[in-house]
Formats: sequence, C-alpha cells, structure tokens
Amino acid sequence: MSRIVMKFGGTSVADLDRIRNVARRVKREVEAGNEVAVVVSAMSGVTNQLVAYCQQLSPLHDAREYDAVVATGENVTSGLMAIALQEIGVDARSWQGWQIPLRTDDQHGKARIESVDGNLLIQRMQMGEVPVVAGFQGIGPDNRVATLGRGGSDTSAVALAAAVKADRCDIYTDVDGIYTTDPRIVPNARKLPRIAYEEMLELASVGAKVLQTRSVELAMKERVRVQVLSSFADADGGDLPGSLVVDEDEIVEKEIVAGIAYSRDEAKVTVRRVPDRPGIAANIFGPLSEAGINVDMIVQNIAADSTTDMTFTLSRTDLPRAQAVLEAHRDTIGFAEILSDPSVAKISVVGVGMRSHAGVAATMFKTLAAKSINIQVISTSEIKVSVLIGSDYTELAVRALHTAYGLDAA
Amino acid sequence: MSRIVMKFGGTSVADLDRIRNVARRVKREVEAGNEVAVVVSAMSGVTNQLVAYCQQLSPLHDAREYDAVVATGENVTSGLMAIALQEIGVDARSWQGWQIPLRTDDQHGKARIESVDGNLLIQRMQMGEVPVVAGFQGIGPDNRVATLGRGGSDTSAVALAAAVKADRCDIYTDVDGIYTTDPRIVPNARKLPRIAYEEMLELASVGAKVLQTRSVELAMKERVRVQVLSSFADADGGDLPGSLVVDEDEIVEKEIVAGIAYSRDEAKVTVRRVPDRPGIAANIFGPLSEAGINVDMIVQNIAADSTTDMTFTLSRTDLPRAQAVLEAHRDTIGFAEILSDPSVAKISVVGVGMRSHAGVAATMFKTLAAKSINIQVISTSEIKVSVLIGSDYTELAVRALHTAYGLDAA
Repeated sequence: MSRIVMKFGGTSVADLDRIRNVARRVKREVEAGNEVAVVVSAMSGVTNQLVAYCQQLSPLHDAREYDAVVATGENVTSGLMAIALQEIGVDARSWQGWQIPLRTDDQHGKARIESVDGNLLIQRMQMGEVPVVAGFQGIGPDNRVATLGRGGSDTSAVALAAAVKADRCDIYTDVDGIYTTDPRIVPNARKLPRIAYEEMLELASVGAKVLQTRSVELAMKERVRVQVLSSFADADGGDLPGSLVVDEDEIVEKEIVAGIAYSRDEAKVTVRRVPDRPGIAANIFGPLSEAGINVDMIVQNIAADSTTDMTFTLSRTDLPRAQAVLEAHRDTIGFAEILSDPSVAKISVVGVGMRSHAGVAATMFKTLAAKSINIQVISTSEIKVSVLIGSDYTELAVRALHTAYGLDAA
Repeated sequence: MSRIVMKFGGTSVADLDRIRNVARRVKREVEAGNEVAVVVSAMSGVTNQLVAYCQQLSPLHDAREYDAVVATGENVTSGLMAIALQEIGVDARSWQGWQIPLRTDDQHGKARIESVDGNLLIQRMQMGEVPVVAGFQGIGPDNRVATLGRGGSDTSAVALAAAVKADRCDIYTDVDGIYTTDPRIVPNARKLPRIAYEEMLELASVGAKVLQTRSVELAMKERVRVQVLSSFADADGGDLPGSLVVDEDEIVEKEIVAGIAYSRDEAKVTVRRVPDRPGIAANIFGPLSEAGINVDMIVQNIAADSTTDMTFTLSRTDLPRAQAVLEAHRDTIGFAEILSDPSVAKISVVGVGMRSHAGVAATMFKTLAAKSINIQVISTSEIKVSVLIGSDYTELAVRALHTAYGLDAA
C-alpha cells in the first residue's frame, strides 16, 4: 500500500466528462489498495474569467478581494470531484484551504505556504475516504483566503504530499513527462524516467515549464517524490509511465547531461564605456533591481583605457523599461551608449552528472563552433552551462547539442 | 445616523455594470452618514449553472458537496462588490459565512440559521468600513459550508440586520414594493407604504413571492424592519420609496384588508363515501404526510348514511402522487372513489384589521356571488379568508374583490 497525492490541472477537469474521467482514475488507485488524496485546479478558463472581472472593476484591485474571488474556482472543482467520486462508489469529501488548514503568509495574490496540518487528511484517508483538496489556496494570518499565485496548485499538491507523508505526488498535466529537450524541436527527444530536483529546477527556469518552480523547490526541500504524467494517455484505462522527479541519490544510472533547455524570451543589453571603478555594477544593477527588473547573465569585459563594457541579459518584455531606467541614471553610471539586442536565445545544458565529469562545457563550445554558431555570453553553475546565441540559431544549436551529448532516442 | 443592511439579489448584480451601480447606491447611503452592511446574491444564472453541474454528475448528490459548490457564487459577488466599492473610494471588505461566523444547523442544502455573531461587522462598520457579506451561506456544526436553500439571501440579510441591530434591512429586488394585488391583473393596484409581518406572510404563502417566507418569519421574530424596493428605479440617482414590512403597531392607519392574493398552483381532491368514524382523517392524511405531500384547505361534509366525503387542496404538482398514495391505501381508508380537479384557484383576502372588523368574509361571499362565481371550499384564519374557485374565474374574482374592499388606486 502506498499513500499518493494526485493533482489534476485545469485542462484535466475542464468539463464534467473530464471530471468523471479523473474520478475513474482516482478509483483505480484506491482499488489498487492505496490511500489517495486529490488536489484540483479550477476548470480551465474559470480562473481567467474571475481575474478579468477583478481587473475590469479595478486595475489596482485589492489583493485580499482578488483572492476571495479567484479561489472560488477550485472550490467548485473540489466539490464536483467529490460528487463524481461518490457517484462511482468512492468515499470522498472536499476540503478548502481554511478547513485543513493550509496556512500561508500575508502576501495576498502570491502567498507562500507556511504550514499544512496533515492530521485531518491522514485521518480521513485511514478511514478509507478520499480527500479532494481545492488547490491554489490557503488561509492567511488575517483569517482570509489567500492564493498562491498562478500555477500554485502544483505547490499545494507538493505541500500536502509532504504534510501527509505521501510516498508520491502525481502531477497530471498536458505533457506525459519530462523530456531531454523540447520534442517540437528534436522529434527523437527521450522521455526521462527519472530526473533530479536540481535538474528539474534548472530546466524549468530556462523555459521547460512543466511544473511550477516553487513546487519543485518545495519538493526538493521536503524530499517529496513527484511524478509528472499525462492526464490524457488513458486509452486502455491505465496510466502511461511519466517522469519521476527525485533526489539524485535515487537516480542510479546518472546521465552526465539530463537535458537541453532553451529560452527565446531573452534580450541582451550592453552598457558601453562605463568608468572602470568599484561600485559601477551596483550603479547599473541597483536601479534595475529597484524597478523590479530581473537580470540573468552578466559579463564584464576586461577594462581598457579605464573604461569597460557591461553586458547582461534580461527578459525581453523588460527591455524597454530597462533602457528607460538606465537612461534616467546616465549621470550616476556615466556610460557612453546603450546597445541592445532582442534577438538572442539562451541555450542551457543541464545535468547533475556534471559535478563529477569534466569536459561538458568544452563539448558544448566545440559542438556550437562546428555549426559556426557564435557564442555571445557564457555562464556556468555547478550543474548547468548556458550560452547566449543569436535566436535564429536556436533549433540548430539544440539539435546539435542533443546529438553531441548522446541524448537522441535509439 | 442609521445602521442599514442593504441586500441585492442576483438580477441586481448580474454583470459588472450592475455591480458598479449597486456600489454607487451603497456609496450614497454611506455619504448620507449611515453605517451600511451589504448582502449579495450570486450573479444571476450562476447558481443555476452550479446546481446543474451537481445534478448532472449525480442526481442524488451529497448535500455537503452541493453546498461547497453552490455557495461559491456569492463569494464571487461579495469580493467583486468590495472591489467596486473600493474603486469609488468606499472602504469595504468581503465576508464569507464561516468568517463572520453565521452558524447554521446541519441540514445541508436547506440549513436554518442558528446564530449570527454581529461583533465583527459592527466593529468594521464603526471603523467606517462597509462589510459585504456573501448571502445564502453559513457554516454548519461540522465546520463545513452550509447553504440556506434557494432565496436564502433574504434570510441572510434579515439575520444580519438582527445581529448588528440595524435600523432597517433594505431588500432590493425586481419589483418596487408590495402591492394590494398583482398589478398584472389589476392595473390600478396600489403600492402599500407599510404592511404588517403577518400580512406579508399570508400574502407570500399564497403566491405573492417578493420575499422568502423564512426571511419574513425571522424579521417578525426579531422585529427587523424590512424595506422592499426596486434595484432599477434609479433614473435620477435616488431610490423610489418602497414598501416597509413592520410590526402592525407601526401601521397607524390600518386598512381592514391589506391585499388580495391568489394562487393557481392548486388542485382539489375529493375522497368519496368514506366511513364516517373516528380516525378516518388520520387514515387519509397520514399516508399523504409520510409521502411529503402538503395538504392545505380541508373540508369534511356532514355525514349522510354513515359515510362522508373528504375534500382537500394540495399543490397541483403533487396531484398524481397523492392519487397513487390514496389508491395504495384504499383498503384502510375504505373510500368509494377519488375525484380530482386540477382547475382550481385559491383567492385570499388578507389584513390585520380583520381582527377588529366583522363582515370581511361576508363581503367576500357577496362580491363573488354577485359575479356568479361558485365557492368550492372556504377556510379562514385570524387575518385571512380564503376561498377555492374555478381557475377560469381568477382574474374576475381578484378584480371584483379589489374594488369591493376599496383597494383601487384613486
């Protein structure tokens, strides 16, 4: 017997037929002898509608009221799912955040989970009941409904799995697992049976959006084993195997490189001929940070004639604002000009195996050079090497690297 | 300064424009120096959609889950109303049943209010904030959301008005007050500036559905002054005067007859030639009661040759079931035959002034006789005389009585 938390996103519960499908899937897990808790999102489209109502009434609406409104979508689905389960003979009961309680901080609209009381749910599961929990919501210190930010139901599920000491948290989504890279670019990309938390985080943060990043961070911290699998691969009534996101110790045959990620939402900025003296980085990046602009890769040229160039990347949507912020601080920074390039892409090679294997970066540079792809910026971490290239070369680079690291399916 | 509870039904908050209209109306009451709490229903159509979801998933759905699902409609409106109020500079905060708390019994789907804690709302109003309360819902002894049955927001509003010791509970609806009779039948029906609780109850129970009956019972018990007024009569930015439902002591110039009500949802059943012995009424009405069929007017003929006829009325939709129940008990009852007539209407003359004035019933019989309308059954109470007539005569009877009691507008 295992204890499993099953989480279903908005497309999996988009209408009553899909809710019935999910109920049957839950029933199979129960009949296999498992203790099961379910976490659901709002029916797809519902949250967007509720958000639109709030925005139309007031562009700067109160986050407490926004939370009270948008959290209702998950309440509807959890009640309906409980009814669908009861209808096919599965004992079930819905739970809202305040009833569990799942406590959050007071950052309404993007609250973080502070604690989850698992006792109620454990007791119900031991009675043979399936708790159906409204995802995305908790209760704040002000005794008001608080939501966890878009995609927060993944985080709800992982937090509940930790609280009830679940053996596994199954996240049903519209992809059937984690791939070595985007199969739309590399058709023979392979599904990874297992991937380490750290790898998943790096892949998620560079564009492979399968799980909400916070849910992976939480899973890593609480050591929750997360399985990503498709809600639709169900022709014969059974689940296709997905990908398991686990501690790297659980991955016996570690690949040196687990996957290749890319992001085209990047822009590059070069601040030319700034005085080469201490504090100049703070002068540039302080104002950007205050404006809420996240900077990613940073490279500073070797100084020549007492000036230097500072190059960095940021989200392309932030580019116009960043240029305005820098111009507004031209006097304190003292630059000659600002160059920007919105046609760049970041390609990342990710793998925990890199820690014990040299030569991963060298292979990357050699492979790109062989395709005549110019590298504009390089950054590395313990388990990742990222390069910035012209965005036109994205697919070419991803395919070449996928082959070079031996990731192509047989 | 007054303390006022304002309640808005589904059509008054059907879309964002109407929600903004309501917000402006609330603002006017606040700017007039009043302390205001608002109670809202779900946007019109929303509750029906949620009910349909539950029924489609399971005709015999769990009432607890039904409550969790359908109560969300009011949560959405209360949050949106709070945002709309804040947007025009009125301090506001939404409240759900469990937050107040408004406690109910455990009859999910049709719960009754057990207690309302007014302290939180009073405190907020004294701070200058407008509480916006989700109607129709409370929290049951099982710590789960419970709803009060369709139309329950009226009852929520009256209960809150009692809890916060409001000077008045204004119920905004799609009619602009209580009339002496249905203006569709009598175009010169008059709007009653004041009507007694007891009169309102009698008028409501015989078909003038403006307020939920339970809300009037509660208002009478708690002595809450209820004003019924239109949410749409607002061309010049002000409210038209509505009708005030109050204790009869507050009505200085009592009319002998306050109004004429009618109901066409009636059917008549005659059980012919039952043995005239003690217990026969129990034999007939016991099984009907067990089947959940409410019987209204009852008349037993004078016995002849040791048998008698028993005639009664019931809701027309219950007629086929009632016939089946009686047939199933033919042996214990021992009747000769069952006659039924679905083409009957009940006409009622209502007024607290009857208590001190004789001749009201006589006027009724004389008026109907003058129009050659045959009276099939008569029943009377302290403040009401009802007769059963052929349904074809409904309008004729209502008009004649309206004139006979001097109710026509000048």
